[in-house]
This record gives sequence, C-alpha cells and structure tokens, in this order.
Amino acid sequence: MSYLTNTPLDEAISLFREKLHQAGVSLPTETIDAARSNGRFCTGAVYAARSVPHYLASAMDGVAVRAKDTFGATETTPVTLPCADFAVVDTGDALPSEYDAVVMIEDVVWLGQDAQLIQAARPWQHIRQIGEDFCAGDMLLPGGSQITPAVVGILLAGGISRIEVLRKPVIYIIPTGDEIVPPGTELRPGEIPEFNSSVFSACLEQLGAVALIQPIVPDEPALLEAALARSLKKSDWVLILAGSSAGRGDFTTDVIQKIGEVIVHGLAIRPGKPAILGICGNKPVLGIPGYPVSGLVVIEEILCPLLYEFARLTLPRRVEAEAILSRRVVSSLKYQEYIRVRLNYTDGHLTAIPMERGAGMLNSFARADGIMVISQNSEGIEAGHPVSVRLMRDIEDIRRTLCIIGSHDPLLDELSDLFHSDIAIDTASDAAQSAGMHLLSAHVGSIGGLMAVKRGEAHLSGIHLLDPLTGTYNGPYLARYFPDNSVVLIEGVRRMQGMVTSRNNPLIIKSLADLTRPDIRYVNRQGGSGTRILLDYQLQQLHIDPDHINGYTREEMTHSGVAAQIAAGSADTGMAILSAARLFGLDFIPVAEECYDFTIRIDMLETPLIRRFVALLKSGEFRRRLEKMGGYRLVHPGEIKGDYHG
Amino acid sequence: MSYLTNTPLDEAISLFREKLHQAGVSLPTETIDAARSNGRFCTGAVYAARSVPHYLASAMDGVAVRAKDTFGATETTPVTLPCADFAVVDTGDALPSEYDAVVMIEDVVWLGQDAQLIQAARPWQHIRQIGEDFCAGDMLLPGGSQITPAVVGILLAGGISRIEVLRKPVIYIIPTGDEIVPPGTELRPGEIPEFNSSVFSACLEQLGAVALIQPIVPDEPALLEAALARSLKKSDWVLILAGSSAGRGDFTTDVIQKIGEVIVHGLAIRPGKPAILGICGNKPVLGIPGYPVSGLVVIEEILCPLLYEFARLTLPRRVEAEAILSRRVVSSLKYQEYIRVRLNYTDGHLTAIPMERGAGMLNSFARADGIMVISQNSEGIEAGHPVSVRLMRDIEDIRRTLCIIGSHDPLLDELSDLFHSDIAIDTASDAAQSAGMHLLSAHVGSIGGLMAVKRGEAHLSGIHLLDPLTGTYNGPYLARYFPDNSVVLIEGVRRMQGMVTSRNNPLIIKSLADLTRPDIRYVNRQGGSGTRILLDYQLQQLHIDPDHINGYTREEMTHSGVAAQIAAGSADTGMAILSAARLFGLDFIPVAEECYDFTIRIDMLETPLIRRFVALLKSGEFRRRLEKMGGYRLVHPGEIKGDYHG
Repeated sequence: MSYLTNTPLDEAISLFREKLHQAGVSLPTETIDAARSNGRFCTGAVYAARSVPHYLASAMDGVAVRAKDTFGATETTPVTLPCADFAVVDTGDALPSEYDAVVMIEDVVWLGQDAQLIQAARPWQHIRQIGEDFCAGDMLLPGGSQITPAVVGILLAGGISRIEVLRKPVIYIIPTGDEIVPPGTELRPGEIPEFNSSVFSACLEQLGAVALIQPIVPDEPALLEAALARSLKKSDWVLILAGSSAGRGDFTTDVIQKIGEVIVHGLAIRPGKPAILGICGNKPVLGIPGYPVSGLVVIEEILCPLLYEFARLTLPRRVEAEAILSRRVVSSLKYQEYIRVRLNYTDGHLTAIPMERGAGMLNSFARADGIMVISQNSEGIEAGHPVSVRLMRDIEDIRRTLCIIGSHDPLLDELSDLFHSDIAIDTASDAAQSAGMHLLSAHVGSIGGLMAVKRGEAHLSGIHLLDPLTGTYNGPYLARYFPDNSVVLIEGVRRMQGMVTSRNNPLIIKSLADLTRPDIRYVNRQGGSGTRILLDYQLQQLHIDPDHINGYTREEMTHSGVAAQIAAGSADTGMAILSAARLFGLDFIPVAEECYDFTIRIDMLETPLIRRFVALLKSGEFRRRLEKMGGYRLVHPGEIKGDYHG
Repeated sequence: MSYLTNTPLDEAISLFREKLHQAGVSLPTETIDAARSNGRFCTGAVYAARSVPHYLASAMDGVAVRAKDTFGATETTPVTLPCADFAVVDTGDALPSEYDAVVMIEDVVWLGQDAQLIQAARPWQHIRQIGEDFCAGDMLLPGGSQITPAVVGILLAGGISRIEVLRKPVIYIIPTGDEIVPPGTELRPGEIPEFNSSVFSACLEQLGAVALIQPIVPDEPALLEAALARSLKKSDWVLILAGSSAGRGDFTTDVIQKIGEVIVHGLAIRPGKPAILGICGNKPVLGIPGYPVSGLVVIEEILCPLLYEFARLTLPRRVEAEAILSRRVVSSLKYQEYIRVRLNYTDGHLTAIPMERGAGMLNSFARADGIMVISQNSEGIEAGHPVSVRLMRDIEDIRRTLCIIGSHDPLLDELSDLFHSDIAIDTASDAAQSAGMHLLSAHVGSIGGLMAVKRGEAHLSGIHLLDPLTGTYNGPYLARYFPDNSVVLIEGVRRMQGMVTSRNNPLIIKSLADLTRPDIRYVNRQGGSGTRILLDYQLQQLHIDPDHINGYTREEMTHSGVAAQIAAGSADTGMAILSAARLFGLDFIPVAEECYDFTIRIDMLETPLIRRFVALLKSGEFRRRLEKMGGYRLVHPGEIKGDYHG
C-alpha cells in the first residue's frame, strides 16, 4: 500500500513534464484538406505553390493597350487607336500578351469602334503584376502556426490543397467504481450517476481534443488493467476517473505501475490532492479524483497546460479580475487551495464570495464565477482584502447579473427564468438594455440574506421575518440591522406557510400541537431562516417545548429540502410553503400567511437591473406563474414599502 | 437596373432586423443528449428531475447508529453498541433506514465485534440530507442559458438525460462567377480559385453554425435562381458570394427580388459597400462582396451580430487596444471605413500601421493584427494620433512578435520559421522565454525599412544600401537617417545580386550592358530598394541611360516578384538575388556581392525578442538553411558592426 505524497504542484508538473519528454510523448501528424484546416497547427513551414495573381491582370475596367502607342497623347493631340490595337478588359481579366498597360474605361472617348485617348499611358499602369500579393515559393506560414479562417484563404489561393497538421489528441476516459452507474439509469440508494466523464470530455473537446468515454469499470484491478491496456492501444492520453483517493487509489496506482510508471501520487493542492500522474510507454495516464470539483482542478491545472505543451490544444487566455473578499477564508499551509467564488458587482467593484468548499458540491461547481488561488504559504485571507480572481464567466455577464441572497422561494427560480428571457415586460420599454441580464439566487435564510446585502455579497435579499413583539413582518428587522436607513423594502408576495405531510396525511397530523407526538419525525429549517422564526414564534404561542419535538435539530436549508425529506419518507412533517409541497405531490396544512419581501440598498434602486426586477414583479407573466404554483397572493408587488422608515 | 444605395450600417441593420422579426425568422429547436449539450442554448427553464443526493448518504467513513442509543456516552461512561445496533458505512453509502446518525470511524473503539463510543452522536450528524445539493423540481437552468461543461454535470446528476436546445443554424453558401473555379483546379489566366466560401464557412463554424458550401454557379440568372431555391429548402440562412457588385450585382438582386425581397443593396461602409440584405420567405439571404476583405467585413459587421441575435451564435468578445497611428489615414465622408492594421509593440505601447486597403490584398487579410474603424463623419486621422484598434490576435502574441520591415530576402521567411519553432539555439538557453514568439516581415525596400524603424512601425529593418560615394554598404545611410545615433547595425549576410534570366538564358544576356537591347524586356525594383540603388549605381558606372532600358519603369516589390515575372515570360530579365532565381528554376548572372544587414534601435538590443533573433543569426541551423538556398556568405552574423559610429 502506497501513501499519497504531498508534492507541490509546480514540482509535480516539472517532474511529469520531464518524464513525458524523456518518453518522447508527442503528437502524430496527419495531412488534411487545407479548406478544412481552420484552428489546426501546421507542422512545417508552408510555401506558396503558385503566385497570386498567377497572371498579369487588369486592375480596372478599361482597355488594354501598348503604352508606346499612346505616347504623346494630350487633350490637344489625342491618339486614336483602331480596334485592332487595344482590347476591352474587365477588372481581373488576364492582360492579352501583346499589351502592357490598361487605360480606365472612363478615360476612353469612343469614336465608333475606335478608342481615343487624351493622355499617354505609363507602361504597366493599372496592371496587377504576377505575384503582387505573394509569389510562388514565398513562405505563407512558419512551421507550428495556428491556421485562421483568413489563412485558409491564402492557402487555397496559393495553391495549397492539402496540409500537414498536428493530429487532434485522442483522450480515452475510463470511469471506475462499483457505485457508479450510467447517467440515464434509474438510481438505487447509494448509486451515483457517472457524469464526470461527460463534463471532462466537454472541457477537452472545446479545447480541440477528441475525448472518448469508455464503459464504467468496477472496482476490480484485473478489469481496470484490461481497460487501460485496451485504451492505450488507441489513445494518446488516458484518464482514469476516481480510483485515485484513499484505499481505492492504491489499485489504480498499482495498475498503472504494472503497465508503466507512476510519477506522482498526491499533490499539495486542494481540492485535487489524490491525483495520479503516470506514464505507460509514451502515453501519459492520469488518475483523476472522483469529486467533480477536484477532478476539474486537476484537469485545469495539470492536464490542460500539458496538453497545450504536448498537443497544442488552445487554452483560453486566463482573465483575472480584482475583487474584495466578502468573508474570511482560512487556508491550510499544507495545500495550494483553489476556491471557487461567486462575484457580485456593485458600485464599480466586484465582491468575491467564497463558495462552499465541499468537493462534492455541484452548485459551487456549476455556478462559480471564478477561482481564487491561495498559495501554499498562506494561512488565509481576511474579509475586506483585495484578491485576484480567475474569471470563469465573462466580466460583462457578471456585471449584468442581479444577485438575490436570502430566504428560499421557488418564485426566485421563476423570476430568474423571466429575467433572463426577452419577455416583454408590462411597464418599462428598455428591452435592449435588459438583453443578456441574469438573475442569480442563493439560499441562506432571511437573516443570512440581510448580512449578505450588508457585506456587498448580494444586491437584494428575499426575507420573511416575523417580529414577535409587533407581530409584523420584515420592517422591524431592517430598522435593527440597517440603522443607517441605507436600505428599503420592495414588496414581494404574501404566501402561505404550513405543515407539509406525506400524501393523504397517513399520520393524521392536524396542527403544530401534533409535533410532540412520539411517532412523528419532524424536519426543521436552519436557524436564522424566516420559517424557523415563524415556527419558534408559533411554538411559543402554543407553549410547546422544542426539546419535545423529534427532529427539531434536523435542519434543511430550503422549502424544497424539507419537502424532499418527507417525499423520501425520511421525515413525516416539516414547515414549508405550499408550492414546495405541490412540487412533490405532498399534503399541506396551512399555518399562517406571511410577507415575503425584498431588501435592497437605496442607491441601487435606479439601476437597470433593479428596474427590470421591479417591472417583472409587477408583470402579468409573473402573476400567471405564481397562480400556477399556488399559495401566493399579490397585493402591491414591486412597490416600496413605506412603513420601515416611519 | 437598380443602383446601389449608400445606407449607413446601423440604419441598414435595424431595417433588416425589423424585417427579419416581421418574417418570424427564428431558429428551430431540437432535443439532444444532455451529455453532448455543451455550448448549446436550452430553450426553456430546466428543472431537476431528481434530488442530489437522492438518498440519505453517509458523509464519512464510519458507523451508522441511532443517535438516541448513544446519548450519555462520555470518556468515563462509554456506550458499547452490539453489532446488531450499528452498520459500517463508507462515505457515500446509503444510510440504512433504521439509523439517524454516523460516527466517524476514528471515533470508534472496537471491542471485538462491538463498537464502543465515548461521545454521544447528534441526530443527523455526518449525514448528507436528500437534496443537499439541489432538490427535484429546483430550477437548474433558466431558459435561454448556454450550457457549460459544469452544467452538463448538474443536468446528468439531476436526472436530465435529454434537453431541448436551439438547433445550430444551417447556412448555405453559394459561390458565383464565371471566372471562379474550385480551389484545387489548375488555373488558367483570368481564373480565380474559389476560396471565400472556405474562409467564411470556417468563420461561421467556429462560432457554432453549420456551413454548407454549394457548387459554384456561373453568371447566369436562371442557374442562380435554381441554386437559391434549392438552398432555401434546407437552410436557415443563405449567402450568395460575389455577384453583389457593379453590373453583376444586378442579377443577384433580381434573383433575390424574384423569390423574395431585397431590403438593402449598398452600404455606407468600405470595404463591403455592395452587400445585399434580402429575405426569401422567413430565410435571410445575403449577397456578400467577392473580395475576401470586403466579404469578411460584411460577415463580421452584419451577419455575425444578426446570427447572435437570431440564432444565439456565440460571438467572441471584442477586445480593443489603444495604439498610436504610424501614418496619416485619409477617409471618405461617404463611408464608415474598416482599415486592417498591423500592430508593433515597443516601449510599452502599440503602434498601428495601416495595411494596404486594396480589397483584394490577401496579405492584409491574413496578416492583420486588428481593425481600426473610422466613422463616416471623419475625414481621416493624422499620424501620431491615438486610435482604438479591435484586436484580431491575442495582445500577448502581438507583444511577442518581432517585426522586421525593409528589404526583401527569403532568408527572412526562414528566420521566421526558426523563430517560431522551439529549436534549440546555439547560444542562449532561454527556451522557455522564447516560447510563443513570432517574427513577422514586410517588404518595402531598404529606405522604406529605415523609415519604418524611425516611425516605430518596426523593430528592425533589413537593408542593403550601397553608398555611391564610398562604395560601402549601409553605415553611411544610418549616419544620414539617424544622426542621433539611436540605432546600430547588426551584421547579416553577404549575398550575391545578379541578373535573373529565363532558364538556359535564351536571349543570351551576358551583362548589364545588354539591357539596352531592344529585344530585352527588363523588370525593375521599386525606388528606395537597395537593388534599385545598386542597379542605378552600376548603370552610372557603365554610363548606361535608364531611359534606354525597356521596362525600367516597371516595378516589383520583391526579389521573388522579379523572378515570378521572368518565370511567367512577361519579362526577360531583372536584378535579384540568387535564391529568388533558384526558387523559380531560372538562370542567374552574378553582378555584385552586397551586405544585407539589420538596423535596430539601440534600446531594443537587450530585449528577449532581439536576443533570440541574434542567437538565431549565429545558429548552425540558420547557416544550414542559407547553404541550401545558395548565394549567401556568412562572416560575422549577429555581431554589431562598429563602423557606423566611427
């Protein structure tokens, strides 16, 4: 059993690069049609096979003449050429061999068939010489150049029909694991759909590689050995997915070691540590960690640069942007860390919000705007510090993204869909201005949302916070958290909260009083969420001790999360909104109607993003979608609520 | 017969856009495998079909327990669970339904088969809840989103196997013209190879379209009409190449008008004026001018933005850079002009050098670094003014490009090839630093080259300038043009100039004295070229009057250009270097050996680009290539010539 090393990334790459050079890793060439060679790299210098133009061509519509026949022509002493002594030519026509100049058609006075000239022609005037663009034998492309569409043009013009280029690298991807099943399959508990190979192949193909996904190999060394041996025959590079961490990694290293050599197993990066860098013959073989974020770090940080070097894959230029870190990030001195961040643009600067670092989190995987790299010798970065972020989305897209963080409601998904669409909204007519706008939402509960607005992580927060003292919603919290009056409340919706139960309510739950029944398993929302505050308020009114509720400490982050547990039978009831219950076909016992509103900084109110947001809240299409979802009531959506400042 | 209008670009586009909207131009959808959907645009919002995780999963390697069985466990009062009361689980395993917590394996003390715990487990600790990532019904993607590799991952994880996306637009390209022949064909005088369709299809395919090139249609309205009708049946958009200018454009407009409607014919842009914007049914049909640069302007300025709008093709973001204009550009008030420029990077800033504006010039087409747009209301821009340039090459590539302008020699092509390659050079060891460097050369003659260095258009100029007074080369010219001693001379090569004649010298030309023979057609080099100066010097020595030389006024820009004319039989002799004669298999009569050296600004000498250049001049590989070409002698290549400062 081999232990993972903790090799620094740069050291691992140079070690591996050296081995690849020693092993003679390189890309075969192929000869292809020049017409279809865009984007490829020519192997050697390419020389023109013919001159362009390849003949003496008229550069004008006119008449071809012998210059000496025209000498002496002036307005007072015109020269008249009989039709035998000139030829009419169009632009691009070949110059008849007996002539050596062209006179523009506008300068010819026609006398019947004869042409009268009032100015002498200079020899070779208005003639494109052979090779004026380039001559046969001129170098069109130095070796190793990448071919662009315009270069395709000069190749074809220069008589090059076929061209030797580097072949696209063929990369075999072998997914492994007993728990892994093809993505389309119906899943049993414990099974994981195999999607990493599709993610990685999409990455590699968009860089110009050919990626071929192999059948899933169970955790069985002999089968993996056979699959690797088969792949090595047809590929330039091989990736073995998962099978690189913990105990399981051992047999991947063993299998690579058996056929070839393991250069590095274990990198000082996080995520991505358990990567394996190996070589079999002259084929690089990489073990890629199983969590998608870990795998992607290894693909981006190791595989792509090496493919660029050894196979001329085109890497997109890395664009960096400065941002202010919204909260403290702690980093280990053992690793160089790659932290995915979301970016929020306000007041002309970006705020970087570190995303959950759990390597398995698909959300941070798919929704990240950039990556922040924290070097190994750093223990972390404090909130408020400037950081450099490697952008994963276009900066303009980020600038046109409205970010709502706070309490969860499925209506945010609908707003996001409407926001992004080119739907005509009722009020404003700035359709052009709203093109390409995005709305992004994240769910951290109402109080978390207010904090996010305060830290500049979000433009808006959706909140539904009951004030137990006044029995009113939201306003009192704004007064408490923003004593400087820097925010206002935009009215959202009234929505019904209630108890979600299994279909047909088999345990006959009637009210919150039933929660203390020993046969009922409750699933709660996290502290700081409006729903939790509502529950606690209700329990207090009913004098119910939370300690007597089985599952009070079991916390979900969203309404759908609560409903999902109940639908799966792992809990019997929980508090959530009607639309979440409907989504899973569950029963719903109304408890209370509440106000779900949006907090926003006053100085953002007049931005195009907010104007579109408000217009959508007021739109008929939004109303129609809410009606379909059920459980909502609209009173003055999109209006600024006045009561908070009072 | 319709006359071309001069419609401003913006006006033409909005007119056309409106028509396309009216006609209901849009892109059909198709349903494809989510695994292969990277880069595509989903049509509607996509919701998760299953929760992730879809089961309660252990978040650790450990034992699954009932939390209440562990209550009260401490170091002094450990709890021992018999093996029937727990289950061993690995990370990701499904939690058996009877348990509600996981204890990490490190925290278990094994007493035979029993597990002893010294700490109570919280209910639901170390368990990934169903839907922790996202729940069934959560929106994964708002409608109209572009799918990234990571999104492919969440789609597959969320149980989405198939997804409805916009179909790629199918664009039929119809080349037209009697003089146009397929690119592989042997060409007769007057014939033009059809390469525009390959250039345009490469452009469109790299943006995500499907481009299909149709057979060439001769200049015959009925045939074009049939081809257009056929294409309309299978395509989303149709491009008719050429057939848009002058008289010929008339029948393209007629044909479009017959089947559909011409919206605009004639734009206030240059190049690109004769473009036709039409529509047949709900299919846009564009007439694209025949010169490649003109055609490309129409593709880039009109077609691409419309394809982005109507077919969601992904346009690369336009990157602009500031540059100093090297020479005055005059522009017409009739047109918005698109001027291709080369960019030279020195001293931390870019110099923009306008390229030849001839619409047919393939060099400016393939070698441009950027485009400068001069608005219609401007009469031009003075030299030295700052201009904004739309980059066509990566700015880093431009910064790593060494630019040599001046006298032509094929050895520059070889240097370019070596410069770009990763060849190990004899002296320096900065291979890493030289990666990705380019050498670009342009030919304007020796004096022109000195001017280019003076204007900041070039880093180096290759010169061979004979001083008639001293009989020496180059130094005296530097003293004259750079009295401030701001440049030095790097020694290049000695090379043989001579008279090139047809193979076997059928006219029995023996020396320059033969040039006055009436049966001999000379082809000269342009004024300011070293070869012209050498000829004039020799003629003066021989007391030959240039007026007595037939063809003295016929000027070519390069050695190869001279040889190409002679090879084509349109001239009998001209002065050029041996390698040019050899390239075309021509005869060569030596006249004089000359010094071909490089002028460079002193302050550039220590840059990595120049260090690599000098190292290459001194390299064995360069020597080998010169020997192969013939006519060169190396003395102290790469050394700084001391005599100029003396």
